[in-house]
Amino acid sequence: MRSSEESVLLTDLYQLTMLQAYFDQGMEETAVFEFFVRKLPAGRNFLVACGLEMALDFLEDLQFSADELAWLAACGRFSPRFVESLAGLRFTGEVQAMAEGTLFFADEPILRVVAPLREAQLVESRIINLLHFQTLVASKAARVRLAARDRLLVDFGLRRAHGAEAALLSARASFIAGFDGSSNLLAGMRWDIPAYGTMAHSFVQTHASELAAFEHFARSHPAATTLLIDTYDTEAAARALLALAHRLRAEGIVIQAVRLDSGNLDDHAQRVRAILDGGGAKEIRIFASGNLDEYAVQALHYAAAPIDGFGVGTRMNTSADQPYLDCAYKLQEYAGVARRKRSEGKATWPGRKQVYRRDDGAGQMAGDTLTLEGDRQPGRPLLATVMRGGRRLAASPPLAEVRAHALRGFDALPPALRSIDHAFPYDVEVAAPLRELAQQVDRRRS
Amino acid sequence: MRSSEESVLLTDLYQLTMLQAYFDQGMEETAVFEFFVRKLPAGRNFLVACGLEMALDFLEDLQFSADELAWLAACGRFSPRFVESLAGLRFTGEVQAMAEGTLFFADEPILRVVAPLREAQLVESRIINLLHFQTLVASKAARVRLAARDRLLVDFGLRRAHGAEAALLSARASFIAGFDGSSNLLAGMRWDIPAYGTMAHSFVQTHASELAAFEHFARSHPAATTLLIDTYDTEAAARALLALAHRLRAEGIVIQAVRLDSGNLDDHAQRVRAILDGGGAKEIRIFASGNLDEYAVQALHYAAAPIDGFGVGTRMNTSADQPYLDCAYKLQEYAGVARRKRSEGKATWPGRKQVYRRDDGAGQMAGDTLTLEGDRQPGRPLLATVMRGGRRLAASPPLAEVRAHALRGFDALPPALRSIDHAFPYDVEVAAPLRELAQQVDRRRS
Repeated sequence: MRSSEESVLLTDLYQLTMLQAYFDQGMEETAVFEFFVRKLPAGRNFLVACGLEMALDFLEDLQFSADELAWLAACGRFSPRFVESLAGLRFTGEVQAMAEGTLFFADEPILRVVAPLREAQLVESRIINLLHFQTLVASKAARVRLAARDRLLVDFGLRRAHGAEAALLSARASFIAGFDGSSNLLAGMRWDIPAYGTMAHSFVQTHASELAAFEHFARSHPAATTLLIDTYDTEAAARALLALAHRLRAEGIVIQAVRLDSGNLDDHAQRVRAILDGGGAKEIRIFASGNLDEYAVQALHYAAAPIDGFGVGTRMNTSADQPYLDCAYKLQEYAGVARRKRSEGKATWPGRKQVYRRDDGAGQMAGDTLTLEGDRQPGRPLLATVMRGGRRLAASPPLAEVRAHALRGFDALPPALRSIDHAFPYDVEVAAPLRELAQQVDRRRS
Repeated sequence: MRSSEESVLLTDLYQLTMLQAYFDQGMEETAVFEFFVRKLPAGRNFLVACGLEMALDFLEDLQFSADELAWLAACGRFSPRFVESLAGLRFTGEVQAMAEGTLFFADEPILRVVAPLREAQLVESRIINLLHFQTLVASKAARVRLAARDRLLVDFGLRRAHGAEAALLSARASFIAGFDGSSNLLAGMRWDIPAYGTMAHSFVQTHASELAAFEHFARSHPAATTLLIDTYDTEAAARALLALAHRLRAEGIVIQAVRLDSGNLDDHAQRVRAILDGGGAKEIRIFASGNLDEYAVQALHYAAAPIDGFGVGTRMNTSADQPYLDCAYKLQEYAGVARRKRSEGKATWPGRKQVYRRDDGAGQMAGDTLTLEGDRQPGRPLLATVMRGGRRLAASPPLAEVRAHALRGFDALPPALRSIDHAFPYDVEVAAPLRELAQQVDRRRS
């Protein structure tokens, strides 16, 4: 059986019931869907586009397996001819998208699918599932990066991420948004994301003495040891390890850092720093973890806590203060005619759209214009064609390049938006041709 | 390459660095770890144990693949002898656990692993990842079930669940906690969870008229049609479909329900109910969706909104108000000696524990006692041995049975805890033998 990441049946029933009806009616013209976020959640000044590579993988690999088809045939909801037709279904369409790592705002599409109706509809659930989560986490992680300034930031959130794929993809999304690495080894194996790790309290507890645990660990990892010192008494552990550090140093074994994981991190860091400095171990860094998010990191920054790096987990990987985005993948055109949903509070801009971003001449973003594809506006266009005929037009960019693109985006943000506090919204103008099309569509319906 | 669900490298680096040190020191005695929640999050009166089956699958299948071992050998952090030793590593230990669907409270272990140190430590990250998420979602879904009384409840959250595994496992967890089914087809294929679905706005938009869309859909699904009526004007659509419903009924095609997905659901439901009843279509049910959670469902219940069923998505599948639990998998004993962590705010109860649950004689839970394994207390013990020698002792119970167990648990809750409002905490007493062991462990260390 395929894993959940691979199965085409990881979709909503209604995709298949709609496809059956389209099949019965012979509706197979070109459909255009766009993925966008309706509005930024409270406390977010911008979002970071993420997940495009996984969405493209999904489209390239789209194919029902024999056992999926057998299950669909047996479930009694679909006609045999329709299920047969699914066997040959592949994604043959094109995709326009913003590059991963691009900053974006409400109503701006970050991905457009242009494909025969059945293909474009079927992929909705998983496209949203992939883009929503990674964009959510990259946007949260960006805030932690901005709060941490240039300190080391490591993703520690595997265990409380929502399942396996969330653990893996949040490591990637946070790396793109400026984290330095992850504790997640699979992310290291898959994408060469630098792996970081220390030790657990259990390691200290299995030993009769804390110092024996420290020494064993250091001898097994002579080039890279971080010792967890809060299992019993943080400052006592810091004082006790000084003699060990000097003894090991004589053998060429270096203790790089200590980790604090509980209590008042600022207080402990101040005291531990003083103990280490006073004991001739100025080179030992202090690394902190435990319930951290951008607010805690910023508070420690303003307090001038002598902390050199942070392990940030749960609250980043689950985007705990805002664990979802109000996003959608909506039909904008079918059979050459622009479409628009008008449900209360959920009306959408019709047609194929482009976003232009203006610069203030000094490298800072000055405003965006949302308009129709083909209508030229000042600035540079953010969406480009990345797939045609169901195949990528170019190889995926290296992850380091995607990360650098995101970091350049942070630098180009107006300072108010770079703060983790709520700012005035960034200016996104809706151009006249798009407004006119929306009115036309409404007139057609009323 | 293995999927993230299958890879043993979906773990934290520190598990492997600790294992290297244990290997170097020849530390291989029996370790005992327990998984528990430190405290209930605000707004939760109880939790629902969930995820055990996936944890047992993980333990039974635990094995490094050749490419995982090759990557570990090449990454430069581990000794060749150690990496070789991992090739033969399997889980050979035993597991005690609460049955899935059991209600539980803070500090009560729901799973214990007893195994050689390296095995028991290595599995930490994924065991937490599996138990945390499913328990989180089952506990949230239980609240929605309690708020919805006996109305139909369907999981609609695939798209905004955090990745593929979260989408799949949240369908299962919510079904266990009393949902009737899911839109997620893979959950249907995997576990026979009933699949529900309607249509998307895009289906209406691809048609020149809403009525044509309704008729096409109904003809393709003559036995089970739910029509989405809020794409343009909800009440206009309800009035328009009456004639269609009568015409189709004459052909034996039944419109089962209409779906509302926007605006004030109570107002729309009242008006649509009146339109349907007045038009001789009393049999058409009203199904509602859109940003629902237990609070919204309860408000609609108290307003007596004529809604027969709910599609609940994002806020349930992400447990949006509390997207994580303060849970841990902690060492409680090593080499026959009880252990305890004393980090500030994170001290744990040492030793192998059991939970006894008392009944008030009228089928209602009257209080729990947390004590040491082997110390008999009033009530019935909640943890039982489910795995020995790395193999399950019995086949997994059918999902319907797990769900029935959870529903019996809701019925046995004191009424105050069954409310979705915050209640006084349930009584969990820590027995004297456990308190004494904790003091002994502290004396040994001080």
